[in-house]
Amino acid sequence: MFLTLDLNSEIPIYTQIRNQVVMAIAKQELKEGDFLPSVRQMAADLGVNLHTINKAYNILKQEGFLTVHRRKGVVINPTDKYKAEKEYYKNLKEQLEIITSEAVCRGLNSEEINKIIVDIIKDLNNNERGRENEC
Amino acid sequence: MFLTLDLNSEIPIYTQIRNQVVMAIAKQELKEGDFLPSVRQMAADLGVNLHTINKAYNILKQEGFLTVHRRKGVVINPTDKYKAEKEYYKNLKEQLEIITSEAVCRGLNSEEINKIIVDIIKDLNNNERGRENEC
Repeated sequence: MFLTLDLNSEIPIYTQIRNQVVMAIAKQELKEGDFLPSVRQMAADLGVNLHTINKAYNILKQEGFLTVHRRKGVVINPTDKYKAEKEYYKNLKEQLEIITSEAVCRGLNSEEINKIIVDIIKDLNNNERGRENEC
Repeated sequence: MFLTLDLNSEIPIYTQIRNQVVMAIAKQELKEGDFLPSVRQMAADLGVNLHTINKAYNILKQEGFLTVHRRKGVVINPTDKYKAEKEYYKNLKEQLEIITSEAVCRGLNSEEINKIIVDIIKDLNNNERGRENEC
């Protein structure tokens, strides 16, 4: 299982699970049609409450990343189910406004922030290529 | 008062207050030595609980943005008190990793994300210049 939880973090466990699933999709560790463990299985694997997993899966479902089938289980959606749309851009801009404002207060400029983002995307892609080479 | 709260937002009120103070510093609407209302005054102005304001001010204090003087009141710190340091860069990278991963999943590339950030910084600066022209 690719999830590691930080129990000392201020970030709630369900958010940590949500974030790590999204990061795994970005790295293509998880792709269309891949299965995630059932709520019960994931709760047992991670040693957390069923409600916590339910909450994480529900958020990911609302965000379009996965579908919970009663019989088949929890499946990653095709990419067109979570393609950026107007609402998402608004949301992204709001999140970046807060983070960028703090960075500007602390003396960073747009080149420095951009460099961090370029490096993150490079890492996501390397990870992807790394796994392709394994095949 | 420059704060507007969205009571329907999922973002807690104390976080909204914290974010708006940071954005006001980024826009130089708030500068070193400027006073914020006392906890009691701010709570009355916004119609929220004293604890909510206390929580927002405590976070801003821990982040280095302000000092709460028992007599003088709540004062914005000089910029060197909140200049980016190692811990902040780590934190920033973690936040951007989550947001960038989601953006990549949703089909954005680094140029598009960078454009949003450049536009945000332009807006922050425009706001700053706008006020200078007023003087």
